[in-house]
Amino acid sequence: MELDEIIRQIQPLDERAMGQAQMRQNRLTKPPGSLGRLESLSIQVAGITGQIPPRVDPKVIFVMAGDHGVTEEGVSAYPSEVTAQMVLNFLHGGAAINVLARHVGAKVVVVDLGVKGPLEPRPDLVSAKIAPGTQNIARGPAMSRDQALQAVLKGYELALAEIRAGAQMLATGDMGIGNTTPAAAIAAALTGRAPSLCVGRGTGVDDSGLLRKISAVERALVVNRPNPQDGLDVLAKVGGFEIGGLVGAILAGAAHRRPVVVDGFISTAAAMIAVRLSPLVRPYLIAAHRSKEQGHSLMLEWLGLEPVFDLEMRLGEGTGAALAMSVVEASCKILAEMATFEEAGVSEKL
Amino acid sequence: MELDEIIRQIQPLDERAMGQAQMRQNRLTKPPGSLGRLESLSIQVAGITGQIPPRVDPKVIFVMAGDHGVTEEGVSAYPSEVTAQMVLNFLHGGAAINVLARHVGAKVVVVDLGVKGPLEPRPDLVSAKIAPGTQNIARGPAMSRDQALQAVLKGYELALAEIRAGAQMLATGDMGIGNTTPAAAIAAALTGRAPSLCVGRGTGVDDSGLLRKISAVERALVVNRPNPQDGLDVLAKVGGFEIGGLVGAILAGAAHRRPVVVDGFISTAAAMIAVRLSPLVRPYLIAAHRSKEQGHSLMLEWLGLEPVFDLEMRLGEGTGAALAMSVVEASCKILAEMATFEEAGVSEKL
Repeated sequence: MELDEIIRQIQPLDERAMGQAQMRQNRLTKPPGSLGRLESLSIQVAGITGQIPPRVDPKVIFVMAGDHGVTEEGVSAYPSEVTAQMVLNFLHGGAAINVLARHVGAKVVVVDLGVKGPLEPRPDLVSAKIAPGTQNIARGPAMSRDQALQAVLKGYELALAEIRAGAQMLATGDMGIGNTTPAAAIAAALTGRAPSLCVGRGTGVDDSGLLRKISAVERALVVNRPNPQDGLDVLAKVGGFEIGGLVGAILAGAAHRRPVVVDGFISTAAAMIAVRLSPLVRPYLIAAHRSKEQGHSLMLEWLGLEPVFDLEMRLGEGTGAALAMSVVEASCKILAEMATFEEAGVSEKL
Repeated sequence: MELDEIIRQIQPLDERAMGQAQMRQNRLTKPPGSLGRLESLSIQVAGITGQIPPRVDPKVIFVMAGDHGVTEEGVSAYPSEVTAQMVLNFLHGGAAINVLARHVGAKVVVVDLGVKGPLEPRPDLVSAKIAPGTQNIARGPAMSRDQALQAVLKGYELALAEIRAGAQMLATGDMGIGNTTPAAAIAAALTGRAPSLCVGRGTGVDDSGLLRKISAVERALVVNRPNPQDGLDVLAKVGGFEIGGLVGAILAGAAHRRPVVVDGFISTAAAMIAVRLSPLVRPYLIAAHRSKEQGHSLMLEWLGLEPVFDLEMRLGEGTGAALAMSVVEASCKILAEMATFEEAGVSEKL
């Protein structure tokens, strides 16, 4: 499928379903509005799915992995080989995302979009490798425009396959040593804010590492001149393969009316590109949490999204999104399972 | 059991278990600290239980109900009869707390500590009625000191029975039309802050209702002169039967080394009284959320607790606590189930 065709599928939310969900919330046995975000999330998901009550299970978390040439600038506290090692950890079920996905009852789909290190083929690893890592964005484009398009289309196809298999709610997650640097570059390119405001410590670089990251992002913008009006150009010039895959998964959710729970810093960069490709994507997004990574708040502000919670997390992998999926599911169960004042014989407001 | 004996059972957290939990968190396959509150919660629960990893399931939520004489001052948007009606709604499984407790896999124990309206005996309703509603605190004490003690001891016994039956984590919830007024009075009495800062709109009173509430709390403090150094005196003079029951459940959790997840405004008032009875209670508490009810932040500040999340909820019943229990459980699963760097063969920080 062509990208233009995908984008044309994305429609506004179902206002009628939202109005009905709001009316039902007001008739449930509680003071109107007293469940706060649980009420507004359920109304949003009704608008996304067009269903009352909306179904959000089965739930699928995409953990997309890729490596980054910019690591040669000394921007990460961990070596690149950790990307492939962590992919194996995901497949063995020992990573944080596995624990949290099991806790909330979500399936994890692990995808290699561009891991540098060797990964043997396995039935539980989706191989969609565009190339073994991006080029160094501080010296030139991360990838070609065609590769960026390929990454987006791969992510779309994979998410579409899960939707066809029954997935009702999607979430995004990432793995890629060095990927807070391209994510910060995307944020700087699209918001127009200074790199120093967009760059954080990622996995935990020290002060000199932080200065190297800021410098790498500054050079990436100068060398590549990404066009902030063109999402695919930003992705190709300063992005990453796993970020491209996440853009595609987000577009698939919006095109097929599934809520997309967006994890932290990397996933939010992907969401920004998806929204730049089509502003109609925005209401399909639920920001899981406010990451501790500096710059994330700027990204959420640009998107106009208020995160579900702030647990001071900054791990990625989809860990924040997994917990937020459970809150979204709770909000839909409220709409589905609570009794109304009439049903329960409870007196209404004086 | 005597109250003094209960309080003497409460011991400081297990520092050795906390140190071991912190060390294990640092060896798990993630940058140290990157799971934020999930890490600190798991360490706290290790200290509470003395176990690594700590067990927090089975989970029990106490929803304690009582009526309030102060409703005759026009302080609530709903009639008193709603307390008994909502108790039946809890027993039929149609209230928000039922939906959220099912979602997180927690048991709900519904207790009548002092409901005014008629409630037929039922096997699924714990009858521990001290009296059919408190007296009007704007005109005199809510209850006698002996009744306050009875309410606390009842709550303690009920929680102890659940702990003996296997409960590993407790949460508090409440139902009582009018009970944001005594909760605000407790907050004002213990913090010394002005009633106008402690009183909020509860279930949704209008501006004149809000002024009546503030006036009722002001008169309650003047008429009763609760002694802020004496938790039982504050409970008796300006509290409520369900609040007393919650104080007892909180003391039971602390005395028997179980984490106690504290819900919103009413539950936090109970937590304040428990902490005034013994400051050693404080580290056993996990504040679930920041309620929209004005005054809740002052209470959390007095307790020195940072809530797990802020979903703009203000319903009570234990609804915020139910969702927070799931986050606490997730934090303990992280400690139990994640692989270490050695186990997963993942390279450590450069």
